[in-house]
Amino acid sequence: MIREKYARLAYHRFPRTTAQYLGHGRADTAPPEEGLPDFHPPPQPQEDPYCLDDAPPNLGYLVHMQGGIFFVYDNKKMLQRQEPHSLPYPDLETYTVDMSHILALITDGPTKTYCHRRLNFLESKFSLHEMLNEMSEFKELKSNPHRDFYNVRKVDTHIHAAACMNQKHLLRFIKHTYQTEPDRTVAEKWGRKITLRQVFDSLHMDPYDLTVDSLDVHAGRQTFHRFDKFNSKYNPVGASELRDLYLKTENYLGGEYFARMVKEVARELEESKYQYSEPRLSIYGRSPKEWPNLARWFIQHKVYSPNMRWIIQVPRIYDIFRSKKLLPSFGKMLENIFLPLFEATINPQDHRELHLFLKYVTGFDSVDDESKHSDHMFSDKSPSPEIWTSEQNPPYSYYLYYMYANIMVLNNLRRERGLSTFLFRPHCGEAGSITHLVSAFLTADNISHGLLLKKSPVLQYLYYLAQIPIAMSPLSNNSLFLEYSKNPLREFLHKGLHVSLSTDDPMQFHYTKEALMEEYAIAAQVWKLSTCDLCEIARNSVLQSGLSHQEKQKFLGQNYYKEGPEGNDIRKTNVAQIRMAFRYETLCNELSFLSDAMKSEEITALIQ
Amino acid sequence: MIREKYARLAYHRFPRTTAQYLGHGRADTAPPEEGLPDFHPPPQPQEDPYCLDDAPPNLGYLVHMQGGIFFVYDNKKMLQRQEPHSLPYPDLETYTVDMSHILALITDGPTKTYCHRRLNFLESKFSLHEMLNEMSEFKELKSNPHRDFYNVRKVDTHIHAAACMNQKHLLRFIKHTYQTEPDRTVAEKWGRKITLRQVFDSLHMDPYDLTVDSLDVHAGRQTFHRFDKFNSKYNPVGASELRDLYLKTENYLGGEYFARMVKEVARELEESKYQYSEPRLSIYGRSPKEWPNLARWFIQHKVYSPNMRWIIQVPRIYDIFRSKKLLPSFGKMLENIFLPLFEATINPQDHRELHLFLKYVTGFDSVDDESKHSDHMFSDKSPSPEIWTSEQNPPYSYYLYYMYANIMVLNNLRRERGLSTFLFRPHCGEAGSITHLVSAFLTADNISHGLLLKKSPVLQYLYYLAQIPIAMSPLSNNSLFLEYSKNPLREFLHKGLHVSLSTDDPMQFHYTKEALMEEYAIAAQVWKLSTCDLCEIARNSVLQSGLSHQEKQKFLGQNYYKEGPEGNDIRKTNVAQIRMAFRYETLCNELSFLSDAMKSEEITALIQ
Repeated sequence: MIREKYARLAYHRFPRTTAQYLGHGRADTAPPEEGLPDFHPPPQPQEDPYCLDDAPPNLGYLVHMQGGIFFVYDNKKMLQRQEPHSLPYPDLETYTVDMSHILALITDGPTKTYCHRRLNFLESKFSLHEMLNEMSEFKELKSNPHRDFYNVRKVDTHIHAAACMNQKHLLRFIKHTYQTEPDRTVAEKWGRKITLRQVFDSLHMDPYDLTVDSLDVHAGRQTFHRFDKFNSKYNPVGASELRDLYLKTENYLGGEYFARMVKEVARELEESKYQYSEPRLSIYGRSPKEWPNLARWFIQHKVYSPNMRWIIQVPRIYDIFRSKKLLPSFGKMLENIFLPLFEATINPQDHRELHLFLKYVTGFDSVDDESKHSDHMFSDKSPSPEIWTSEQNPPYSYYLYYMYANIMVLNNLRRERGLSTFLFRPHCGEAGSITHLVSAFLTADNISHGLLLKKSPVLQYLYYLAQIPIAMSPLSNNSLFLEYSKNPLREFLHKGLHVSLSTDDPMQFHYTKEALMEEYAIAAQVWKLSTCDLCEIARNSVLQSGLSHQEKQKFLGQNYYKEGPEGNDIRKTNVAQIRMAFRYETLCNELSFLSDAMKSEEITALIQ
Repeated sequence: MIREKYARLAYHRFPRTTAQYLGHGRADTAPPEEGLPDFHPPPQPQEDPYCLDDAPPNLGYLVHMQGGIFFVYDNKKMLQRQEPHSLPYPDLETYTVDMSHILALITDGPTKTYCHRRLNFLESKFSLHEMLNEMSEFKELKSNPHRDFYNVRKVDTHIHAAACMNQKHLLRFIKHTYQTEPDRTVAEKWGRKITLRQVFDSLHMDPYDLTVDSLDVHAGRQTFHRFDKFNSKYNPVGASELRDLYLKTENYLGGEYFARMVKEVARELEESKYQYSEPRLSIYGRSPKEWPNLARWFIQHKVYSPNMRWIIQVPRIYDIFRSKKLLPSFGKMLENIFLPLFEATINPQDHRELHLFLKYVTGFDSVDDESKHSDHMFSDKSPSPEIWTSEQNPPYSYYLYYMYANIMVLNNLRRERGLSTFLFRPHCGEAGSITHLVSAFLTADNISHGLLLKKSPVLQYLYYLAQIPIAMSPLSNNSLFLEYSKNPLREFLHKGLHVSLSTDDPMQFHYTKEALMEEYAIAAQVWKLSTCDLCEIARNSVLQSGLSHQEKQKFLGQNYYKEGPEGNDIRKTNVAQIRMAFRYETLCNELSFLSDAMKSEEITALIQ
């Protein structure tokens, strides 16, 4: 119920089935769009994806940050009177109460036993299902015409744009630029213009000799439990100049090289026809100009692709900016991140480029090394962002709350205007404290990684009941935090958690040209997944993604938003109906156990 | 010493280092070609690979089989006198003595202890090497210009032509033929011509609806320990008609479809530039016409590719042919396999097509389910092939001996004429009895699989000392005989056994377009192999392969045939010299232990 409240407030998704058992469900006759996030359908083939003409008028609203959250006011007078525009606003006190409720729950002995047993039961039940129905499932798939694992839609639900090409691709691109334009000015340093040739000369390097070994952007044994080493691998040949030149949107070339590589990756996806991806682009919050610059990069280099939908990642590195005196407070960072979005939402006319770019942005991610420990315990006594001026980094849960809170207000404002909304999709549970998964349980639509659910039966069971999508990247984990054979993906899938497969960083982790297929192939081989398993994961990935309602209908079937077998169109998904029925019945069974227990408690209470 | 004798007799390879420690080594000043097998260099770009004009003259020799082995006679008179042409001929009695010697050795207690300990030592020694030198190795590779894992040569050392395309490729090809030529006559049954459309009509199937699921040529959980099910997966949609039409060289279309698909695979290899493959084509021994038909198929459809070298696989299925009354005796099967080769070698003028085709054939493979048990124990009392007329299948060792014996005679004859020789490269140690690995220790140049070396320390150590190449296919094993995580490849590699990676059957086992890269990628990921490990495996694969001396010099370096670091050209192989030195020193160390022990025994004997 707690998660449902937070989901509804932010236009995040919550499963209808679970809602119904909680007694809060809307009738199934409700229009499908209700309860679904609002994403722009992609432009029609004849439409110009970069058309700046349809910006709606200026509402003239004002925004003002208070306690780290933006409040919207109809006009100056209302602002002075402190009477915000009628939108739901988050309340920190309620939030901390909810948080501590869940925290108490996950350490409660009897609850742990119950959840642990139910999870074991779910796993055994699936094994039984598999033994009994494996051949029937395969028979269903065999008689399903024209659809197999290769032509079901798959979305790479978690991938960083700066590592979306593989190492060989980056190498080839670097060599190509050097061959074709060595004398082009590509940087400026202390007022001096620097050509590409000079860049490589200063590194004492001939790009002809460059190899994937000397490029050294691939993770390996030496990155295991070393997120710092992993991060520094983003520097080709260990040189941050090359990272700036090739993998950034803001540089002397206006991010041209990076845009070209991303577009090459996009062309490959388009050719593959069935593969989509949701690359993360960075907004750091150092300056309010980052947003208009990013939008301009996108439009100027024509980066749009029908097979890509964009996610904005915000690295949790306030402490670095603060220590370099780039930011006075955490509040300023939040302001740099969100103010431009409120302005572009209130007055798209004057922020046409950003308004356009936001059509293709479907969510926010929160990224960094989760294993870093924080001394601060987030509570309603914590300093509010405006007065968080220390050099200490706020903890994970603090970041998550303020990201969520502002996304929630922004989504409500945008929804009111008929604009698209955003999902909050943080990295969570890759490492570090289990409380991260508690924060995300409230604030996230879906998460990336979720490995640590392995350690908390209560949270794992809650993630199951609420069917929170988890984008898992076992190859990434294998190089960073958890050996492949110990990855819980197979176990989660079997129990019925809503998992998808994603690549995270093809540049760092993959060997072949088709990173997502490599990810699926290895999972299939190592865990002996069946075709039905693979297609279920692929279906999950489309559901989890920011693809629009129209696209999902096309890729998964008209009724994809319905739960259980009626939401599945095997002709499009290649998922056996037996499997869908099993999943649905199993979930209903778990939910009805709980709702029966709740009812009998209510009755007992009434009698007494 | 025993293996060395058999290797020299058949023009198989034996490591110089080991030979030197045995006191039988030739000086390192011996010309490089000596002791190397003779393979034709590929035709120059301007040469016609199908030119039939250079067939040498008829020698007029006669051949006659005796005791299952072909003997060569200079003329009729010599045949009558039973005075064969002067060539080494194998002797069954010596062979059975040698076999029982090795069999005694592998069960001898102290020998087992010694080998077990040495193998443990080798493994620990490598771990130590890795911990100490991992970064130095990588540093060597990083400073090696223009060469990395992607552009070192790799040979797919074990792959069956009938499964060399992946399942998606086969599917697309079938659909394409149906779209473009549905009315073409593709078969004849009881005198009635049948079009492609009729083939599919009779199967009640529209190829448009066909998927990889309904095609059903991919191995999976249900093939584990079921070689029979695996074999039947070669029938697309379970229909042997389609196997005949698409995956055979002999059919109404003269194997056109199969040739076209193989050529598509070859084009992809050529484009990849750095990948080579050694596909197996079948000769069954049912009829002497198989050879000329296969040669005609090759030439007529222009199947030659610079990136492919051919191996002939002989399935061990005499029993099936015998029970169908297609063969009177095992001797006849051997005759059908080898007589055409002796004829084409003695008189290439009259067998121009076969003579040409044999230039591109570099070896023989022996294939079938090794887990099938045989009641017969091979000895010098066993019935000779001419009188092996029972319906029972001869045992594995019987097959291997007669294959080896005839290849050996053939090689000596061919060498005398200056023609290329063949390597015997059987499947061995995939399953079944450990004695298979004993037979191959004598008779094979190198083997495919070798999994069961895991179970015999003595054999494993012997395979190490003799550096017998092993083409391993962990993904194939994973679907048939051994789970991926239990595969001994990593352990063998660490100990210093001469292993390569191969795909076996991309159609059955792989998911992506690049099966060999998938094989390497999964091994790299699951076992966290370093770049140096991968490049060492790739180098091994080239050494093991049937690529010519000229090609190996080009791909591995001028001195590739030398052992130890001087045989390695890092600029071509990307294998660190530190690694090469470690391997060489380690092997020398093991060998000198043994030779010291031998010497001290000799001295002891002298004193006494």
